[in-house]
Amino acid sequence: MRDSNREWYFVERPEGEPDLDCFELRESEVPEPDPGDVLVRVRYLSVDPYMRGRMRDVESYAEPWDVGDTLEGGVVGEVVESESERYDEGDFVTGNGAWADYCVLDADDTAPVDPDVGGLPAYLGVLGMPGRTAYFGLLDVGEPKPGDTVVVSGAAGAVGSVVGQIASLNGCRVVGFAGSDEKTDWLTEDLGFDAAINYKDVDDYRAALDDAAPGGVDVYFDNVGGPITDAVFTELNVDARVAVCGQIAHYNDEGVPTGPRKLPQLIAPRAKVQGLLVGDYATRFGQASEQLGEWVATGELHHRESIVDGLENAPDAFLGLFAGDNIGKQVVKVSE
Amino acid sequence: MRDSNREWYFVERPEGEPDLDCFELRESEVPEPDPGDVLVRVRYLSVDPYMRGRMRDVESYAEPWDVGDTLEGGVVGEVVESESERYDEGDFVTGNGAWADYCVLDADDTAPVDPDVGGLPAYLGVLGMPGRTAYFGLLDVGEPKPGDTVVVSGAAGAVGSVVGQIASLNGCRVVGFAGSDEKTDWLTEDLGFDAAINYKDVDDYRAALDDAAPGGVDVYFDNVGGPITDAVFTELNVDARVAVCGQIAHYNDEGVPTGPRKLPQLIAPRAKVQGLLVGDYATRFGQASEQLGEWVATGELHHRESIVDGLENAPDAFLGLFAGDNIGKQVVKVSE
Repeated sequence: MRDSNREWYFVERPEGEPDLDCFELRESEVPEPDPGDVLVRVRYLSVDPYMRGRMRDVESYAEPWDVGDTLEGGVVGEVVESESERYDEGDFVTGNGAWADYCVLDADDTAPVDPDVGGLPAYLGVLGMPGRTAYFGLLDVGEPKPGDTVVVSGAAGAVGSVVGQIASLNGCRVVGFAGSDEKTDWLTEDLGFDAAINYKDVDDYRAALDDAAPGGVDVYFDNVGGPITDAVFTELNVDARVAVCGQIAHYNDEGVPTGPRKLPQLIAPRAKVQGLLVGDYATRFGQASEQLGEWVATGELHHRESIVDGLENAPDAFLGLFAGDNIGKQVVKVSE
Repeated sequence: MRDSNREWYFVERPEGEPDLDCFELRESEVPEPDPGDVLVRVRYLSVDPYMRGRMRDVESYAEPWDVGDTLEGGVVGEVVESESERYDEGDFVTGNGAWADYCVLDADDTAPVDPDVGGLPAYLGVLGMPGRTAYFGLLDVGEPKPGDTVVVSGAAGAVGSVVGQIASLNGCRVVGFAGSDEKTDWLTEDLGFDAAINYKDVDDYRAALDDAAPGGVDVYFDNVGGPITDAVFTELNVDARVAVCGQIAHYNDEGVPTGPRKLPQLIAPRAKVQGLLVGDYATRFGQASEQLGEWVATGELHHRESIVDGLENAPDAFLGLFAGDNIGKQVVKVSE
């Protein structure tokens, strides 16, 4: 079992929409852990929209991938060999590792996983980076107050679904934009959103928003950009806060996308628009994990993972993010 | 002298760029002050870019003018008849009044003017609303720190010229965009700007900015919008702050102007962009006035007014704002 390994390589920079030609699966040796490391049998790996940015040859917050690099991201798996005192064989851990059957992680860059809370895939979603992004992005940048109307784009995604629920827990009215009736039903029936708009089913986003949020928008948590965001900006209340977490509608754009100018719209409402990266909150990750874990344990915070089966299908799972295939967090199941 | 009065009326809503047909000067009676009021012989009146917004039939922070309304704005003048205990005849006051030879002001809505500090027109500029806008917009929204690079658009205007100087007083490196060599010379030679870019003289704003601010932009105080702002947004440093004070490049646009999308540019630098209205700081106007007056008195804060002579020329002075005719604050001299 441990004799063979497979790893995904980034072999071609995409122009516009990426496709399967950007990826190549190669056989390799199972890597050896150095002192302080653990060898992990990957159970689940994470595909995330931000990875599209790493495919560009542009310096940014996440280091760009060079052609020929191994693809990597969040993983959760079982320690099968430990050169660290922190872990024993059989422990579960999460960290950043290769899209592979096996990967080596520096134990200091991992967090232990309790498989009884939320299940393993949750550590790539609600209990992982997307959950923490939602937590800090909404609470620190969005600053929701009880009674506020909070609008979320990409509301059925890994981050958006958590944002809406935390807003609800904070006494806000929550409206989500998502791309199918199955998604909007999930938002309103299971997650407690007050309203949800299937943007593929309405022509006039602004009118739909006006129906769903007749009092205007106090907080907008944006994962998407594009025409949804254009509509929301017309409905911002005085002192509105906009957290710009993602802009998935534009990640495959070549060149700089254009659209309605938003700065003139900010003056009358004195709105604040702020970009966010979860890494800025690293010193407070413990606080977020504890709170999110508690909400998951009590059932106040629902979560869902879309699972693509098999390491060989990881690129498809990644590409599906841009088609909106996932409900909740998209993960790839690598092994039982 | 006091038998005749003239007042400007708003008689036609402009589409796109306003012209003289929007205005009509009418003879009228000198108004009578009620108890609590003062009758003021106007010395100077203010024309400001925000007034273009009042010409639109759209609810906003400043009440829209109806066709047939008297035009109004900041005035400074001499009390010629007082029905208030706060003022005697011969006192100077500033407040919001008609574009007219005489206007009646409620004494409670005025501030006394010391003609020995800065001169009367300064109370419509550095010691008036534009000065306070610069003060709160830069310090509260821009949050400049010593060593920051602060970029100002419309830098030779009433607000921008004060912003740049306050930034300098706070130990920042200051770069201004303005529209003539006379303006940029004023900024660098008299106001202490570290660099100034005549945007009418350069093709590539981004390259010019890169030369003038090689370390990137920490604070951007935007009075203008359009291509200058597009260039500045490509140079924002991590944790940059953008104060959106005005967007004069777009005030005459019909419909919603389009341009490069800026939200995708905010994520990597985690930049904050915020609209501002000076009225939100009303409870702290005293603090601002005291500080600005002190800086003017000590000569640390320079100011300049562009003066158009004669009430009959007030619309020309207003229209000239959009052509960039003014250096410093544009005022109209109504009487000696």
